[in-house]
Amino acid sequence: MRFDIITLFPDFFTSPLNSGLLGKALAREIADVHLVNPRDFTRDKHRRVDDESYGGGVGMVLKPEPIYAAVESLPQFPRREVIFLTPQGEKMHQGLFRELALNFDQIVLICGHYEGIDERIMPLVTREVSLGDFVLTGGEIPAMALINGVVRLLPGTVGKEESLKAESFEDGLLDYPHYTRPAEFRGMRVPDVLLSGDHGAIEQWRKQQQLQRTRERRPDLWQDWLQESEDRTQETEAG
Amino acid sequence: MRFDIITLFPDFFTSPLNSGLLGKALAREIADVHLVNPRDFTRDKHRRVDDESYGGGVGMVLKPEPIYAAVESLPQFPRREVIFLTPQGEKMHQGLFRELALNFDQIVLICGHYEGIDERIMPLVTREVSLGDFVLTGGEIPAMALINGVVRLLPGTVGKEESLKAESFEDGLLDYPHYTRPAEFRGMRVPDVLLSGDHGAIEQWRKQQQLQRTRERRPDLWQDWLQESEDRTQETEAG
Repeated sequence: MRFDIITLFPDFFTSPLNSGLLGKALAREIADVHLVNPRDFTRDKHRRVDDESYGGGVGMVLKPEPIYAAVESLPQFPRREVIFLTPQGEKMHQGLFRELALNFDQIVLICGHYEGIDERIMPLVTREVSLGDFVLTGGEIPAMALINGVVRLLPGTVGKEESLKAESFEDGLLDYPHYTRPAEFRGMRVPDVLLSGDHGAIEQWRKQQQLQRTRERRPDLWQDWLQESEDRTQETEAG
Repeated sequence: MRFDIITLFPDFFTSPLNSGLLGKALAREIADVHLVNPRDFTRDKHRRVDDESYGGGVGMVLKPEPIYAAVESLPQFPRREVIFLTPQGEKMHQGLFRELALNFDQIVLICGHYEGIDERIMPLVTREVSLGDFVLTGGEIPAMALINGVVRLLPGTVGKEESLKAESFEDGLLDYPHYTRPAEFRGMRVPDVLLSGDHGAIEQWRKQQQLQRTRERRPDLWQDWLQESEDRTQETEAG
């Protein structure tokens, strides 16, 4: 998997791309990340990437030419997605990460900045993605989140495949609580069932914790899960 | 504003904290960020921070003692929030950033890792926050998102206050499209109204674009906005 990041701040990425599990995955060439600065594609002596907004208003807007030139400088793999990171896009979610990990071999990420980006870059873009309903100083953190989440799903990054399955969102539910040694810490004891060695009971407890947490904390996910359970039951009955 | 990040990967933060608008804000001491590694608070010779999960399962769980020791090593400001970054938490949103920027002078961020973290750290935590419905290799990227979003709102980070007001989510709507020079680019022209100099017409066009985008792309935000508009109208009529 190849990632190309179009960013005015390539230095931002130095340490995140070399740290932790992602750093290890990139060192093992499970994926590679290329940084491209639109400023390198300006042709005026001030190397200007932004200009005033037509119609007025405070803040500068990124010019279209350097973005086009940057994207057009890239090699083009057959299965390529060009993602613009913007609060106006579809929200990042686990299903998007799975889809990108499965169906693409090149992901171009365009990071916005300043007040905005000239709307005429849209013909370059195949998908607009948002990290969430909030505003950051640029698209760099959203780009890092997407790369981290997608590379995690590529074979070889996370040790065991089971480890990917048994976690939040993979089955539409929140995760269950985890405990490790010591069995008692500051007066707080690990739930007895987890020390029982009864695997059936442990599994049942964990599932029940997942259901309870999801119902209490995320009524939206809970409703989706109920709907899907119902659909599965009907399919089984019909089949 | 003081941020303390509890992380097994302090190196992750080196370049993001020195880059772009956030780097400038930190250099001007609008906020300061301290990194604390729980590994420095282990007392065994292997400096172990994780252990097997009680009840079985692949993946390691972060032990409670080093997290407690790390948090307890910090100075304690009067208005302090201790945030655990986890997919089980409330979703990050602009309102949370505003609340944190206004009401706190110390934010402690606990980054999870591996399969999970021992549930018994919860008495330390005043709030659980999620970046979104997806899984990353750790809490470092969510911590960066939160710091970036909060520091942006502190006086002095973004040049003009108006620049903060006229953007996504501040009025519950998505942003309008932006354009800058040239007026024509690859056959695409800037909308005439933006070149008209008619400020009333420009404002009206932008508002209409915000409404249309929000309705089309985010029916959920749109419903909230309609409800709030109705509430405002009723208040005005009642007053």
